[in-house]
Amino acid sequence: MKIWDKGIAVDKKIEAFTVGRDRELDMYLAKFDVQASKAQANMLAKAGLISDAENEQLQQGLAELAAQVEEGSFTIDESFEDVHSKIEYYLTEKFGDAGKKIHTARSRNDQVLTAIQLFLKDYTERTAAKVLELVSVLLQKAEAHQADLMPGYTHFQAAMPSSFGLWFSAYAEHLLLDLALFEAAHTVADQNPLGSGAGFGSSFPIDRQQTTAELGFGQMAVSAVGAQMLRGKTEKTLAFAIAGMAATFSKMAYDLVLYNSQDLAFVELPAAFTTGSSIMPHKKNPDVFELIRARCNALQALPNTLMLVTNNLPSGYHRDFQILKEILFEPMTQLLDILDIVLFALPQLKIKPSLLDQPKYDAVFTVENINQLIQAGTPFRTAYKEVGQAVEDGSYVPHKEFSTTHLGSVHNLGLEVIQQKVERLQQGSRLFGM
Amino acid sequence: MKIWDKGIAVDKKIEAFTVGRDRELDMYLAKFDVQASKAQANMLAKAGLISDAENEQLQQGLAELAAQVEEGSFTIDESFEDVHSKIEYYLTEKFGDAGKKIHTARSRNDQVLTAIQLFLKDYTERTAAKVLELVSVLLQKAEAHQADLMPGYTHFQAAMPSSFGLWFSAYAEHLLLDLALFEAAHTVADQNPLGSGAGFGSSFPIDRQQTTAELGFGQMAVSAVGAQMLRGKTEKTLAFAIAGMAATFSKMAYDLVLYNSQDLAFVELPAAFTTGSSIMPHKKNPDVFELIRARCNALQALPNTLMLVTNNLPSGYHRDFQILKEILFEPMTQLLDILDIVLFALPQLKIKPSLLDQPKYDAVFTVENINQLIQAGTPFRTAYKEVGQAVEDGSYVPHKEFSTTHLGSVHNLGLEVIQQKVERLQQGSRLFGM
Amino acid sequence: MKIWDKGIAVDKKIEAFTVGRDRELDMYLAKFDVQASKAQANMLAKAGLISDAENEQLQQGLAELAAQVEEGSFTIDESFEDVHSKIEYYLTEKFGDAGKKIHTARSRNDQVLTAIQLFLKDYTERTAAKVLELVSVLLQKAEAHQADLMPGYTHFQAAMPSSFGLWFSAYAEHLLLDLALFEAAHTVADQNPLGSGAGFGSSFPIDRQQTTAELGFGQMAVSAVGAQMLRGKTEKTLAFAIAGMAATFSKMAYDLVLYNSQDLAFVELPAAFTTGSSIMPHKKNPDVFELIRARCNALQALPNTLMLVTNNLPSGYHRDFQILKEILFEPMTQLLDILDIVLFALPQLKIKPSLLDQPKYDAVFTVENINQLIQAGTPFRTAYKEVGQAVEDGSYVPHKEFSTTHLGSVHNLGLEVIQQKVERLQQGSRLFGM
Amino acid sequence: MKIWDKGIAVDKKIEAFTVGRDRELDMYLAKFDVQASKAQANMLAKAGLISDAENEQLQQGLAELAAQVEEGSFTIDESFEDVHSKIEYYLTEKFGDAGKKIHTARSRNDQVLTAIQLFLKDYTERTAAKVLELVSVLLQKAEAHQADLMPGYTHFQAAMPSSFGLWFSAYAEHLLLDLALFEAAHTVADQNPLGSGAGFGSSFPIDRQQTTAELGFGQMAVSAVGAQMLRGKTEKTLAFAIAGMAATFSKMAYDLVLYNSQDLAFVELPAAFTTGSSIMPHKKNPDVFELIRARCNALQALPNTLMLVTNNLPSGYHRDFQILKEILFEPMTQLLDILDIVLFALPQLKIKPSLLDQPKYDAVFTVENINQLIQAGTPFRTAYKEVGQAVEDGSYVPHKEFSTTHLGSVHNLGLEVIQQKVERLQQGSRLFGM
Repeated sequence: MKIWDKGIAVDKKIEAFTVGRDRELDMYLAKFDVQASKAQANMLAKAGLISDAENEQLQQGLAELAAQVEEGSFTIDESFEDVHSKIEYYLTEKFGDAGKKIHTARSRNDQVLTAIQLFLKDYTERTAAKVLELVSVLLQKAEAHQADLMPGYTHFQAAMPSSFGLWFSAYAEHLLLDLALFEAAHTVADQNPLGSGAGFGSSFPIDRQQTTAELGFGQMAVSAVGAQMLRGKTEKTLAFAIAGMAATFSKMAYDLVLYNSQDLAFVELPAAFTTGSSIMPHKKNPDVFELIRARCNALQALPNTLMLVTNNLPSGYHRDFQILKEILFEPMTQLLDILDIVLFALPQLKIKPSLLDQPKYDAVFTVENINQLIQAGTPFRTAYKEVGQAVEDGSYVPHKEFSTTHLGSVHNLGLEVIQQKVERLQQGSRLFGM
Repeated sequence: MKIWDKGIAVDKKIEAFTVGRDRELDMYLAKFDVQASKAQANMLAKAGLISDAENEQLQQGLAELAAQVEEGSFTIDESFEDVHSKIEYYLTEKFGDAGKKIHTARSRNDQVLTAIQLFLKDYTERTAAKVLELVSVLLQKAEAHQADLMPGYTHFQAAMPSSFGLWFSAYAEHLLLDLALFEAAHTVADQNPLGSGAGFGSSFPIDRQQTTAELGFGQMAVSAVGAQMLRGKTEKTLAFAIAGMAATFSKMAYDLVLYNSQDLAFVELPAAFTTGSSIMPHKKNPDVFELIRARCNALQALPNTLMLVTNNLPSGYHRDFQILKEILFEPMTQLLDILDIVLFALPQLKIKPSLLDQPKYDAVFTVENINQLIQAGTPFRTAYKEVGQAVEDGSYVPHKEFSTTHLGSVHNLGLEVIQQKVERLQQGSRLFGM
Repeated sequence: MKIWDKGIAVDKKIEAFTVGRDRELDMYLAKFDVQASKAQANMLAKAGLISDAENEQLQQGLAELAAQVEEGSFTIDESFEDVHSKIEYYLTEKFGDAGKKIHTARSRNDQVLTAIQLFLKDYTERTAAKVLELVSVLLQKAEAHQADLMPGYTHFQAAMPSSFGLWFSAYAEHLLLDLALFEAAHTVADQNPLGSGAGFGSSFPIDRQQTTAELGFGQMAVSAVGAQMLRGKTEKTLAFAIAGMAATFSKMAYDLVLYNSQDLAFVELPAAFTTGSSIMPHKKNPDVFELIRARCNALQALPNTLMLVTNNLPSGYHRDFQILKEILFEPMTQLLDILDIVLFALPQLKIKPSLLDQPKYDAVFTVENINQLIQAGTPFRTAYKEVGQAVEDGSYVPHKEFSTTHLGSVHNLGLEVIQQKVERLQQGSRLFGM
Repeated sequence: MKIWDKGIAVDKKIEAFTVGRDRELDMYLAKFDVQASKAQANMLAKAGLISDAENEQLQQGLAELAAQVEEGSFTIDESFEDVHSKIEYYLTEKFGDAGKKIHTARSRNDQVLTAIQLFLKDYTERTAAKVLELVSVLLQKAEAHQADLMPGYTHFQAAMPSSFGLWFSAYAEHLLLDLALFEAAHTVADQNPLGSGAGFGSSFPIDRQQTTAELGFGQMAVSAVGAQMLRGKTEKTLAFAIAGMAATFSKMAYDLVLYNSQDLAFVELPAAFTTGSSIMPHKKNPDVFELIRARCNALQALPNTLMLVTNNLPSGYHRDFQILKEILFEPMTQLLDILDIVLFALPQLKIKPSLLDQPKYDAVFTVENINQLIQAGTPFRTAYKEVGQAVEDGSYVPHKEFSTTHLGSVHNLGLEVIQQKVERLQQGSRLFGM
């Protein structure tokens, strides 16, 4: 067991194991830890726990750090174990004892929790905004392609006439529904844990309502014990939201991979989204969509991974929670990347026209033909047999003209009703700043 | 391979495999299928697709079925493959062709979907109401036990003074937060798919807004393709909600199992919730809470099971969805059972008084002692060393008097602020009929 | 909360919650509990802990019970909480105190564990035997269809010539590989926990080697603490095996669902395995294979469900383990049912001949054409461009004659090498009684 | 959406998305890709597909690359998309067309598969060897602490006398059992896919038995279709093995975290494995073991993540498989790190002596006392009541002397029987080169 031969190596291995990737992952939190520290200092000053002069120094130092984060020059080098020690060090270097006072009536537990709450809350808002952008693109595509019919599949079999208008608007509506879980994640992230200390509060006369207001939290996580229990719960709730939306993109990607195959050939993917084969000159592989599907399927595994780490632990802090950052933060970015890629790809997607002119899809008109017979007076059972018999003996001639009137059907997409859903959502939800 | 020796056995095995447990599980849906059929018939009549006389017959027949369901006399015997064929048979037996017309402009796909949407939506509302009952019990217990201190644990180690007031109110707040996911599930279940047919609409001139209004759906699932994509999504969203709340009960049960152990002995569980051992006369095993924990942990696996079944399937109906009923319906009831058991157990829970008088918990007062020294002028570092040294050499004498003032701390539980959360929730949410 | 109004209802609810479905599930264990009890009694007699006369009575009573189980007349009615109390009651009713002595030096913990170990071990052996049956069918089909070419797909696109011979033999090899996990599950189930008591042994002078030998266990779970830790581990290891094999059947079903679609139309499913549509006369839905896929996907969720229940519990018995039976036992049967159905379906599967004669698959010959050009002296890059250009401008003429020689290729399936794998497995594994 | 403003940025984002972390992750594969390339070249030469002179060049170039990998100087810079293009480039730069010929009769699919099979197989062997090291340490600790009693817990309650000897040897046996899944993973990784091309073989007259033998594979993945289906399956089988062993370490860590708490105080953790608290001078937090537990719980999520990505895809290659490397490779290393840390920690673990002298554990002797009364002639029921009554009224005096004789009990650990298991395993398994 050579690696343990020398004490120094052992310590490094253990240190590496315990610090993990905190320095790297904490970069996501820097902005929010600075923001929460500003609110904490203002509150301490108002409560008389630090002087106004000390608070002015802290506000100045924290403003400098905020600017560094904004411009990308903020770093956490190896001498610090995390973002919090880096910030404290910066303030203490600059202002001496005043710098240290930022930690008055605060413990590492509530500090980390607060930064994570703010970060995840901000993420849900940014994601929701981007989703609405995509919904808008999908509704435009639905309108543009409302006349482009396609065979609708059930059981992997061509079944009835459908359209790209229905397909695009379906995904618009589903992304809107996916925001319901983001709303839930926002609600859980919107609880202020600052002041709950290590999970049992403190005897300092702090004003938690002030930090709740300054940080823009919708509610306070009142019980200090309950505040600590947010660790893992906010992450998991967001993971549910990510998993839910990832399922939608996975399905969309699956559809497009199939629609791009030679057998179906419903769409042509943009060149940047396919690759050729090194040995088969006829292939145009839908790589990007296969990778979106794969990535989205991995994202769906997130909630379960978080559960296995956080489950069956009693209340109160456990060091186990540290690895939640590593499990969650990068996947959060991955979902945003996928949104970007889909936003880029969809406008370029080419739809093959007149798909239903192909004889192989004739049979998808049987239901319409039966309905037409019924409306002309033939009883259903007779109509069904007649058409079925014609299909069987090859004499079936599809009546390809048909017209639908109800909301959500081929000839009446109801896009304005979907647009109203968008507006209702924007007006009623804290996700959009309401 | 004997079972396949005779044709008849084979067919039975395959029939059993395909029907699965539908007859039994469809009992959950009977009420809602009847309700949706009534709305469908009313709409068909108004649209002129059936006559008013036919609609009157259908309404009467469906009212009879509703009464059977209500009084518990409705059954689905083996001659029917599911609830839907039973209902149609009943109407057809009674009214002949008029009975068959209930299925005009409806396919099995949107019919099943609609019943499931209504059932899951109703479930979220019933669960939410029960959760508020329990929150109220928890807040009462928090108030009653606000003076009962307990050691607060971090890292499985006694750390600082906490209280049963904080503990009970923590769970009250968390159950309220768990309703955010139920709200999301409600939103997804609150979409009307009726009229989307097999997933591509139809050419019948139906009025989907009428059924949306009559059935009390908040919105219509407009795109027929999107409506069909609800299958699996509503179930999964509800599974997220169930899993989220199950995690809260699992943690509560874990706490109580530990608090009931001889080493901690913080609480005494009601006799009905413990068992003795057949060979160890000193044992009082916390069986019910261990089983609640186990059951809640199994409930947390639900979303993943649903994902594995529904994931990586393109849009459009697949028969795979049939087994979702079997995966989800019984666990839904299990969560309600657990709510009932907790509602029954908590009022009987006995708290051991004066836990912090035990010398083994003296050290939990060190933080307070340090804070007191700081407030008296000693620098933090000096105070920390001084108290640490005293603990080390055994001379440490805890000052057990301490007082906290901030919201969510031992001496200021802020129960009225939590109560306001309850009210805000009740007033703002469709879960509570708003 | 009416259900708790009366004490009696409460107790029933709690009793129902704690007993769960034990009576029903314990029917799976009856045979094995009887078997283990016989071995226990024989050992007790040899150790002098019971008399030979008492042992004779016990052996007789247990033989009667074994016969009841065998002939299907054994039941566990509501007056017993599980199979173990039923058996003990039977013996005590019959033989008085001698009956009670069966429980000497045994606790419920090691008794249940032993029955489960024997049951799961037996299951792995029965499943493995059935798998070999299916492998044999697959190899026959591979041989029969070695000349039936099909387009081989990558990225959901037709890529190169493949064959049903390769397809059938692929699944034969994979099922053999899936037995590696069954072997692992067998190894874990093959440990004898009997005598470990409640998990800490006892002071009775029992002979654990004797019961190990009589029960046919390969090894003893020596440490009593370790024996108890088998609970959950054996179940989970078997769940891994079930999940692994379920993935294979899920993929096979997915293939067949696709191959049955109108777009591909590679196979014709037996009539008993498809259904028509009530509204679309042209549909032949591959229901059974969709349900096999769905079921197998749910089976893949098993290990995770077991993990969530058993994870993050320290060593020693916890009541949580009780629900493992409910999670695992029925799915075990489901896998066997699927094996039966596949065994029944495959021989009836009809392969469409001459698939590659369809012009739409011409391009799958490009790789062969390039290879032929290369072997005739053209550099790869030139050949690739030339063929690619021909495909592009529509002048490509496929040379459909090709011949392969290496093991595992279209024209050399190597079925005899696969058959050797079967034999090596049968000869080297305890799964097959070696 | 600024990032898409310029074409160039888009391409970079898409390129970054498709390449992923391949360059970094492929470093794990370099050694094995070189090894497989050597075997491929030798086979091509023998089959006459390349000349002996060309093969000599290739062998020389590959030996140079192997040396670079060995000494750590091998790199994959940004101009290469993966390890395979880097190696091919190196050979082509050096030997011109001869270099390119390494890819004759090989496709990227079977090349990547072969490297992964070799890597995962090697990993199972290295892990197994380290596990035996740890088993040996555990058996030594068991022997050293066989006289150190501890209270044995069931239901989180002290139940009966146990010992550290039983505890250490339990984990020794369980790690041995965990190797059964590693054996299964080894069996699946031990199949040679080289020569299966893109998944359908080729018309080159290659000799797959030769590469199977040279690379030390136990078997050939015969069917080319089946060989391709290994992708994802080998990874998942290894993930099962990792998850299984991670569960054992998670439980061990959980035990140690509890045993280190003030309430139990059974062990003293080495200083390097605990941290103090910044605000609580009395705390000694078991950080490393909490992190081992957390990490091992995340490792248990691996199989499910792999399932979600690979499930519900028909046979044949899909680009989705690319992300499996990213999901699996780092966790593989993490398990080895944990083995190292445990190997380092256990020898330093200090056991608190005489734990059962504490009066709070008196009741754990009741079972022994009852057994002693029984062996002295008192009927069980009477003995149970008598002792129970004494516990109840506080008059119970434990007889702490007890002695056990059976294998696997406190006074007869049977370490030599466990040692025989180790030897049987080493002699019978391909994991250990047999």
